Amino acid sequence: MPAARPPVIVVAPDSFKGSLDAPAVCVAIVRGLRRVWPDADIRARPMADGGEGTLDAVLAAVGTAGRRHLHTVAGAGGAPTPAGWGLLAGPEGETGVVEVAQVVGITDPAGMRAPVGARSTRGVGELIRALLDAGIRHFLVGLGGSSTNDGGAGMLVALGLALSDAGRRPVPPVPDALASVATVDASTLDPRLAQSSITIMSDVNNPLCGSRGATAIFGPQKGVGPGDIGRYDAALAHFATLAERAIGRKAAANPGAGAAGGLVFALQLVGGEFSSGAEVVARRIGLDDALAGADWANPGEGRSDAQTLLRKGPCVVAEKARARGVPVTLLSGAVDPAALAELGGVFDGCIALPAGPASLADCIAGAGTLLADRAEQIARVFAAGRR
Amino acid sequence: MPAARPPVIVVAPDSFKGSLDAPAVCVAIVRGLRRVWPDADIRARPMADGGEGTLDAVLAAVGTAGRRHLHTVAGAGGAPTPAGWGLLAGPEGETGVVEVAQVVGITDPAGMRAPVGARSTRGVGELIRALLDAGIRHFLVGLGGSSTNDGGAGMLVALGLALSDAGRRPVPPVPDALASVATVDASTLDPRLAQSSITIMSDVNNPLCGSRGATAIFGPQKGVGPGDIGRYDAALAHFATLAERAIGRKAAANPGAGAAGGLVFALQLVGGEFSSGAEVVARRIGLDDALAGADWANPGEGRSDAQTLLRKGPCVVAEKARARGVPVTLLSGAVDPAALAELGGVFDGCIALPAGPASLADCIAGAGTLLADRAEQIARVFAAGRR
Repeated sequence: MPAARPPVIVVAPDSFKGSLDAPAVCVAIVRGLRRVWPDADIRARPMADGGEGTLDAVLAAVGTAGRRHLHTVAGAGGAPTPAGWGLLAGPEGETGVVEVAQVVGITDPAGMRAPVGARSTRGVGELIRALLDAGIRHFLVGLGGSSTNDGGAGMLVALGLALSDAGRRPVPPVPDALASVATVDASTLDPRLAQSSITIMSDVNNPLCGSRGATAIFGPQKGVGPGDIGRYDAALAHFATLAERAIGRKAAANPGAGAAGGLVFALQLVGGEFSSGAEVVARRIGLDDALAGADWANPGEGRSDAQTLLRKGPCVVAEKARARGVPVTLLSGAVDPAALAELGGVFDGCIALPAGPASLADCIAGAGTLLADRAEQIARVFAAGRR
Repeated sequence: MPAARPPVIVVAPDSFKGSLDAPAVCVAIVRGLRRVWPDADIRARPMADGGEGTLDAVLAAVGTAGRRHLHTVAGAGGAPTPAGWGLLAGPEGETGVVEVAQVVGITDPAGMRAPVGARSTRGVGELIRALLDAGIRHFLVGLGGSSTNDGGAGMLVALGLALSDAGRRPVPPVPDALASVATVDASTLDPRLAQSSITIMSDVNNPLCGSRGATAIFGPQKGVGPGDIGRYDAALAHFATLAERAIGRKAAANPGAGAAGGLVFALQLVGGEFSSGAEVVARRIGLDDALAGADWANPGEGRSDAQTLLRKGPCVVAEKARARGVPVTLLSGAVDPAALAELGGVFDGCIALPAGPASLADCIAGAGTLLADRAEQIARVFAAGRR
């Protein structure tokens, strides 16, 4: 039907959480687009924002320049947990991609069985140490989707930090024990960290403690009871003060230090630099190159609302597309009607999955088919405009 | 945002049954389009297919060339029922628009209280007679949405046909009595009918009787019990044979004679000519002229499925748009995914109302807002294609 030349289309959706990962979303959208333009130049670039799915998205996009590895470390509750990580080749040397959710993910039933006061990010430190052993000195660490609230104490201990109580006995790096820490010794911290670059990928800007801190805002969804928020928040503050003094750097008040239960605080203490997760992923997957000469860009996510504009994946895709004058349409599982006006300033049309009244369960179960169908229909509208 | 000149857009939706009439659908869609193109040349042409809503659509489209009138006649159960009708000016003289659903509508609680065997189209005949008295000789009769199954006997009796039983007693023109008709006398039929043109607007092609007839197919939704189908079907056949002989014309086997409980059969007996309802409405509302020079056409309806392709309103809009090379996008309350492939042959994109998981009740309650929002979003996609 379209008379114009086949278009160049960038398909760059995030995962649809709870139903399809970002590469699978790409596959479904491309299927729909192909029904309209069998000959289109379609550039599939699965996106992520540093949270769950980041590793998949980066590896899918870099192709042969990346490889997935597996290393077994302690999960949040201590059980051996095989964690995927990625190794990327690049001009500056090898980069290790660590996704925190692979180690202490909130969707890991073994980790979630342990009470939140006993969960630790020790496994994240074990994984980083293993990568240091393998000679890696560049790290991309994707935050988000963690079940822990230990201020990164577990990770730091696994990397050599020593915590002891007033009787000089070692203190386990878990929320329930942090209040009893009397001494923090940083002299045994892995010296290779100082030679490394650590890019922290996150889209959260909460500080470590206080009313907008990790415990108050993200604690409840991890199992911190209303009566325990004050106690755990105080424990993090106590640990943070001692750790900052021992390491000689401040981080607790940084915006974003509270991400992943304060793990970002700990990463910043050892030199990690905070970055927009979606920005870093976009750079790594070559989004900007893909947009060169494109006619149309298609980001998307499970649910779009006002939060989408806080530098989530679709927002970053839209910015980069607009900078090149490429129209950009949002195709999401759902679009919050209350956010349409704001989203309208960023996207050339926001379309959702359902083809009629439908339950959330039906949308999730049928996401692949719905996506392909909706992508086709919206492509027909776009094509109609080109005629 | 769009750089191209403001487009010429034809908005020609049918009603969204159960939520918005066609003019209200137009208003909502135009509201959404205006957010994208404040200066667009938008031509709103509410559509209908001859059924419920036809009068509204025609009057809304012809503007000052039409006027709505009210005349009180017998409803399906005999209760006085104020029925709207329309008077259109035109080169061939005045035309009366009669919508059967205004007289014997299936949504009229008074009519539905009477058992189906006692319901009659007498009021339709009374209305036509009143229009004849007013000098009107051109009629557009919209079928669909009727509660009756009397083969149009009631209408014919109101127009002068005489039914009597073996004892020469008059027989009431209702399904329960038709089997007792022994004689039909057409000599008293209103002679002005022979000088009139009657255009029957319908999109049903069932014959009067038999397994695909009015009683078997549409009877059950009007209250004909499974055990009564044979009896009522036979009564219609009996009446039809006598009426055809008396009037000297055959109609019972015509495709479409079974529409509106056989009322079309009776209209054909007095010279009515069957026509696609949507075609007639399209002609009356000047759809073709509106499409001249248009950039985009937007039909829609409450729910689109394979039936849409059976010459429903959106299908007729699409045909006329395509004949002029105008892209045409369907915007409906819901779109049956199973029909997408077929609909794709006719429409440049089929989009539904929901912005996410939603119940039917929520879609209906929020239809106006949803429509405006969805129209805006799809317009943005169309505009993106034009850039």
